Parts: sequence; C-alpha cells; structure tokens
Amino acid sequence: QVRGAPAIALLGCLSLAVELAGGAGPSEDLGALEEFVRQKLEFLLSARPTAANLGREAERLRAFVRQRVETPGVTPQQLRESIIEYIEGLLEKDRRDNRNIGAHGASDILGRVPGGGPVTLLTHCNTGTLATAGYGTALGVVRALHQRGSLSRVFCTETRPYNQGSRLSALELRHDGVPVTIIADSAAAAAMRERGVQAVVVGADRVAANGDVANKIGTFQLAVAARHMGIPFYVAAPSSTCDPTLASGRLIPIEERPGTELTHLGGILLADPEVDVWNPAFDVTPHELITGGIITEWGVFAPSEVCRAL
Amino acid sequence: QVRGAPAIALLGCLSLAVELAGGAGPSEDLGALEEFVRQKLEFLLSARPTAANLGREAERLRAFVRQRVETPGVTPQQLRESIIEYIEGLLEKDRRDNRNIGAHGASDILGRVPGGGPVTLLTHCNTGTLATAGYGTALGVVRALHQRGSLSRVFCTETRPYNQGSRLSALELRHDGVPVTIIADSAAAAAMRERGVQAVVVGADRVAANGDVANKIGTFQLAVAARHMGIPFYVAAPSSTCDPTLASGRLIPIEERPGTELTHLGGILLADPEVDVWNPAFDVTPHELITGGIITEWGVFAPSEVCRAL
Repeated sequence: QVRGAPAIALLGCLSLAVELAGGAGPSEDLGALEEFVRQKLEFLLSARPTAANLGREAERLRAFVRQRVETPGVTPQQLRESIIEYIEGLLEKDRRDNRNIGAHGASDILGRVPGGGPVTLLTHCNTGTLATAGYGTALGVVRALHQRGSLSRVFCTETRPYNQGSRLSALELRHDGVPVTIIADSAAAAAMRERGVQAVVVGADRVAANGDVANKIGTFQLAVAARHMGIPFYVAAPSSTCDPTLASGRLIPIEERPGTELTHLGGILLADPEVDVWNPAFDVTPHELITGGIITEWGVFAPSEVCRAL
Repeated sequence: QVRGAPAIALLGCLSLAVELAGGAGPSEDLGALEEFVRQKLEFLLSARPTAANLGREAERLRAFVRQRVETPGVTPQQLRESIIEYIEGLLEKDRRDNRNIGAHGASDILGRVPGGGPVTLLTHCNTGTLATAGYGTALGVVRALHQRGSLSRVFCTETRPYNQGSRLSALELRHDGVPVTIIADSAAAAAMRERGVQAVVVGADRVAANGDVANKIGTFQLAVAARHMGIPFYVAAPSSTCDPTLASGRLIPIEERPGTELTHLGGILLADPEVDVWNPAFDVTPHELITGGIITEWGVFAPSEVCRAL
C-alpha cells in the first residue's frame, strides 16, 4: 500500500515505531528488545530488493539501538522511547533533505541552461509527495524551479505499466499549480526534440559505488535519448539511496513483476492473457549516461564520485 | 475501423471498387466517371495525413484511369470494370510484396548476425496481417525468419497509447506459433541489453526522399537505443511508402491525436482528465539512425538511396 523508495523506507520504520508505541515486543530486557527490533527490520527488508533506502535506514537504526543498549543506565522503557523518537526524526529529515535536493538541483540546472531559464524539464515515474515524506526528490527539483519562477513546463512520462507518471505525478503537480504535460513513454525522445526539453531529472532506487543507478524501468532508455539529444540527465536522490557495498550497477538485484501488469488493467484485458511477458520493474543506467550529475541533499556530484564524497 | 498504412491504402481503394461494383457514379460519360473517381480519392486522402501509401496508390490509380479514358473505343462500363479489376490486383500485389520484403529482410539480417542465426528481434506497433493484405512488412520479416527456423524470439513493445503491439502483434504471432514476448515501451533498451536483441525491425508510414522515416510514435526512441547498443535498425515498407516529393522527414505532417487516449482506457480513468497531454501519433526517425537499411519488395537499400533507387 506504499510505493517510492524513500516512502517505503520511512513507512517501514514508522510501522515499527507504531508497534513499539503500542507496547509490542519485550519490555523487561534490553537485549531482547534489540533482537525484536532486528527481526522486524529483517522482515521489512524482504519487501523490496531493488531499493537501497530501507536497507540504509535499517542499518543506521540498528547501530543507534546498539549504541543505546551499550549506554550505561538505559532502561528498556527509555530504549523503546528513544527508538520511537529517532524514527519520528526521520520523517522531518526526509522533508528537509528533499528541500535541499530541490535547491541544489534547481541551481545546478539553471547554471547550465543558456540564459538561466525558465527551463522545460522531463521526468519519469513519481518521485514527489506521493513517494517521499513530502516535496519529493526529482519532483522536489521541479517544485524548487517552479517556486523560483524558473519552470516553463515539465513533461511527465506515463510510466507504464503502473502509470505512476500519469496517475500520480500529473495529479500532484496540477494540485500545486505546476505546468505539467503527460506523454506516452514512447514520446520522450520526440518531446526532447520537438518540445524543447532542456534537462531530464529522475529519482533512484539504488546508486552503486561506481555511480550506476537503478530506477524505474525506462530510465536507461531516457538517459540514452538525453545523451543523443545533448540534454543533461540528472538523478535526484537522498544520500541513503547510495549503496557503497555494490561496486557496480550490474550487481543490483532487479525485481521482476507479474506479466498481468501489462495484460490486464482494472477489469479490462489489454492483451492475449496467455502471452509471454517480460516485466522488469527497474533497470540500471550506467554512470556515464548521467551527464548532469547526482543531486543529493549535500549537493550535486559526478556519478562516479558520489558514494565516496558522501 | 481500419489501421496500418498499407491496409488503409488497400481498404480505401477497395471501398471505391465496392461502390463502383454496386453501380455508384455516372454510367453514361467517361469524363464524369473519371471525375467521380477523383473526388472519392480526394475524400479518402483526407483520412490520414501522415501515411504515404494511400496517396501513392491514389496517384497511380488516377494515372491508370486517365490512360484508360484516353484509350480509343473504351466505354464507361469497360472503364468501370477495369478500375475494379485494377484495385483487386492491388490486394494480391500487397501480399506478394510483403513476402518479398520478408525474404529480403530475413536474408539481410541473417547475413549480419554472427553465426547466421537464429536471431532475437524487437519490433514496434503492428505491421502484420492486421495492418496489410496479409503476412506483413516488419512482421513479414519476422514470419520469414520463423519459417526458415532462424528466429529465437521476437519482443513486441506494448505500443502505447493504442497498444497495437500487445493487442495485435502478440495475438497474430501467437496464432502463427511464433515465439513472442511483450514488453512495456520503456523496457525496449533494457531488452536489447539484457535479453540479447540482435536487430530491430519496424514499419513505416512515410519515407522522405532523404530516407527519413515517419512511423508510430516511439520509433525514433527505439532507433536511438539501437544505435547506442550497436544493434542494426531496419525499416520494412513497400515502395509505395516512399514519398520522393518531400525532401526531408521534417516536412512530413504528423497527426496529433486526442489526449483521452492517454487519460482513458475503456471505462477506466487513467489520469486526471483535466491534465494537459501531448499525443503525437507518429515521429520522424532521421535516416542516419536507420543503420540496417530500408527493406522493400525490391531489396534492402541504404535510407538515403531508397527513393532514388526505387
């Protein structure tokens, strides 16, 4: 019932906080409570293999718990409360990080376009208030440019097969008064050429140590088209998206989803239901195609430097 | 009620033959009958501005009528019968041309892949028995390879917004026992990289004098991806698709279709119905991206030479 790598990480952690606030888990023993938290996090991690954020947040939370357990004099009740407080802090941090991503991205893009804007952007999938704690990553950059009066228009791909672009991004941008146009995924390269797209900004589910990026299926194809058209291609993602333990994007596990996402829509049959379908949810964009850079809450980095720099 | 550039041309001409066979139009005067045919063809031409085939067939038919009218001793009844006969001949010619396209394309592709096949192809939209008099253009090449035992698999893009790939191509290929897999339009570049696609073959609605090709929206993006991956990109089209009167693809009129094709599907609302939509039905692929060549009933040509050679 929740989507978007940052939102999945936050909701996963918040669900644990809700359980702890409701009295779940051992209340007599520090080590038993630590083990309870560890097991809950393991279960949450099994939900989405491609996204990095939940894994990073889980790792940090485990380290925080470990440190609190080792602090002399801490009671199980104090440990429980400090975990809840820590997790609540993640919510505010995500919103703050997104505003910083938006500011860094907007400045970098305006510095690259002739005349300093206003600019026409293209984005993919949904990376906004419906994928984060609020504001958004790639859509945070779009919002920041709009707030500065420097956005002409943003093209949103439909983002088949789950239509996050047409269903979610178009909805939340129109709600905020941002000029938005939806296009078929196939029309992206044509929009770059015919409609004056000046930069492409997308989100990320995981960034490998070499700067390769796993993101929604179609991202690789957009990056290839952007390079062909000579348009900078940016990835906007909080630092928790970076996974320095994977040397290259080839090692990122790619979730494959049911073929019914392409053959059925609501009650409507879109294709022969017996047909073979290949439906990867993500693809990997090699770092050399991310020509604009990777926009994080700390600034914009060259893809091959982002993990080391962070 | 009919789609596919070659099928539109055939059905347009056949509808005229049906009218003539039913006694429509003047029967006393050669000139009046010629004028009747001319007006009917003008009306048919207004239906689809992008495709060239109907225009070419109409032009040839007008020349045929002119020549018959000028033949001494021809009666209006004989003129009527000869027009019907001429149009019926187009049906057989289209099937024969498609088989020749299939044979030329299959040989050319097998000559380019290491080891001589079997090959894995990718195609877009529908260019088969449901778009022609039978057999197909790009799907004719697929069928020819399959009949030679030289096709591993063909990937069909869904082809949003009208889903001709998943609805039509997958259906007709499965019907013929051809191994077919459908993918989202966004997954094409990933399929080239991850699934061993060795060539891309698409159809065409119009080929300009310089070899630029107008075809279903998304074709340009596929050609860019194919070049990035080093995979040959072919266009399969009968010679009637060539329009030597247009110097370049930039002059081809591109039909834009209603945004409701992206916001609605059957009774289901896919997006905010008020959102702005850009929905071009076609795009233009510059000739330099057609690295495999243009496959016609006369053979495979370099894009920049095809119009002159034909």
